[in-house]
Amino acid sequence: MNVEIQPLNEVAMTAARERQAQLVKPPGSLGRLEALAIWLAGATGEERPQVRARIVVAAADHGVAQEGVSAFPPEVTGQMLATFLSGGGAVSTLAREVGAELICVDAGVNASTTHLDVVHTGLKPSANLAVEPALSQDDVRHAIKVGMKLAAAARTDGFTILAGGEMGIGNTTPATALACWLTGGDPAELAGPGTGLDAEGVARKAEVVRRALARDESDTALAALASLGGGEIALLTGLALGAGRYGLGYVCDGVIATAAAAVAAAIAPDLKPRLVAGHLSPEPAHARLLAHLDLNPILDLQMRLGEASGAAAALSILKLAAASHDGMHTFAEAGVSTQ
Amino acid sequence: MNVEIQPLNEVAMTAARERQAQLVKPPGSLGRLEALAIWLAGATGEERPQVRARIVVAAADHGVAQEGVSAFPPEVTGQMLATFLSGGGAVSTLAREVGAELICVDAGVNASTTHLDVVHTGLKPSANLAVEPALSQDDVRHAIKVGMKLAAAARTDGFTILAGGEMGIGNTTPATALACWLTGGDPAELAGPGTGLDAEGVARKAEVVRRALARDESDTALAALASLGGGEIALLTGLALGAGRYGLGYVCDGVIATAAAAVAAAIAPDLKPRLVAGHLSPEPAHARLLAHLDLNPILDLQMRLGEASGAAAALSILKLAAASHDGMHTFAEAGVSTQ
Repeated sequence: MNVEIQPLNEVAMTAARERQAQLVKPPGSLGRLEALAIWLAGATGEERPQVRARIVVAAADHGVAQEGVSAFPPEVTGQMLATFLSGGGAVSTLAREVGAELICVDAGVNASTTHLDVVHTGLKPSANLAVEPALSQDDVRHAIKVGMKLAAAARTDGFTILAGGEMGIGNTTPATALACWLTGGDPAELAGPGTGLDAEGVARKAEVVRRALARDESDTALAALASLGGGEIALLTGLALGAGRYGLGYVCDGVIATAAAAVAAAIAPDLKPRLVAGHLSPEPAHARLLAHLDLNPILDLQMRLGEASGAAAALSILKLAAASHDGMHTFAEAGVSTQ
Repeated sequence: MNVEIQPLNEVAMTAARERQAQLVKPPGSLGRLEALAIWLAGATGEERPQVRARIVVAAADHGVAQEGVSAFPPEVTGQMLATFLSGGGAVSTLAREVGAELICVDAGVNASTTHLDVVHTGLKPSANLAVEPALSQDDVRHAIKVGMKLAAAARTDGFTILAGGEMGIGNTTPATALACWLTGGDPAELAGPGTGLDAEGVARKAEVVRRALARDESDTALAALASLGGGEIALLTGLALGAGRYGLGYVCDGVIATAAAAVAAAIAPDLKPRLVAGHLSPEPAHARLLAHLDLNPILDLQMRLGEASGAAAALSILKLAAASHDGMHTFAEAGVSTQ
């Protein structure tokens, strides 16, 4: 798979750097906000960028859930999708608060979603990756294509930033398997409690990942995505690739969305500059994936829900970066003495 | 000085904890957002708290600036106060973005501020703390009283959260001196670059602090505030005390505002539960003061500007905590299966 990535806009970044140097504050004193403002300029091509964000939450079910790797029953996936759309999910409230649009995707939910205002992909729940490939190559390519189309649509609709999130009972298991495959990590080290497993459950999850890796023979990230992934992960891989191809900034959420972004960056290494890490979750595989991608998380609030909740929270910081960059006066405008 | 502090509202906190346990997410999965929502309930007395925040920025000049402890000339203090009010300062833009009200206080600015819409205190710039007490005891008591009155007014005006910030060329020096006095720290370890000193300047600042501490004979935090502090620090000490007395939550900003909060907590130890740390700055004395207060910063974005900029940024996270706590559906409302 060959995806052409738009590089960050260097002209806009240079202009933004020059503007930052003139704003009425000691150079560098707004720390990460300054760096994020310059990144936003590069990602959006705007010298004084605005954060117009769309959050895409992809949901899917997973055959591997039958291995007892989640604290919740599988029917929750479809129920949560309905909750997001009703406005009562965590991501619904956070998206409202930060002024981001939220859209949801059925990327292989077990329950019927025809009554819901979601993007339908035709994907089915994944097979049990402990014993067989999770998805077919056709399914993976289709999911990536839909994700990329969603990025194209976001660009057409005037958004500058995409944040990808997910919902899927059992999906920290494929994310951990992909993290092990991508980084060479040990399942016993990278498996974590997800949304609430006890120590025994974590050990069971690590063993499931170990079995999956022992079975797997993938020699490319795309093949590993089919073998070890899931519908929502493949869709988010496409969404991140699409952000790169169509020239948007992309905010990674937790371990599952970051695993998808890492697969995308393995497919198209030029994608990396278009990614920021919204937050750090306590899930061990997340820290490993962020280090692998050389990303420094904006927030560290011990959030471990998924749903793009961490990315949505980080949008508030991106908005502060944009607001200060755009709204502050220069030393000259303010008539303030310089050093 | 004896200030009666209102304890956090345990009834509202218990109700908020019970609500959090019913919201449609695994328990604890929103991490710090959950803890902050419960804190907001305790600080505001509201089971479903709203963040109605007022930011108070106190400005003052410092005799110690003549020791060459700042990268900027002293006339900048008054110029920046005008900039904040014009809407073009960093804190002006951040306050707008998070929907907080901003008021400014002249707590001893060298320049005339009669043309500015600020709170006037009658305080004069501090004396050079390297060689003599920075403020008189009368000045300190007056500044604390004005700060407490500002907290009372905020309560009357319907605000639930106060964030204190400052502007004052040279004021990391008194803040560092107070941090050393309060925590027993070594000036050479706690002095930092402030808004942009080089290594030589930092060494000079440490030596100034050492001279001040050698001269100082304070045996109470209130006495130390006069000996080693400054007008804006004393005012913010009063603001934090007033947040405790009149039942608001208080968000600490960087090293200077946190030094003031630490003095307030030394005067009235019951104040501590009403404080949160907005952020961690790179200034060494800030980390020391936060540890001394047992506060865990919400953000770590390498911000080192002051002006309440870090506290203002943290208000965005407090708003997300309140929004998710208030807006999310319960498992029962959402019809989602539980564990």
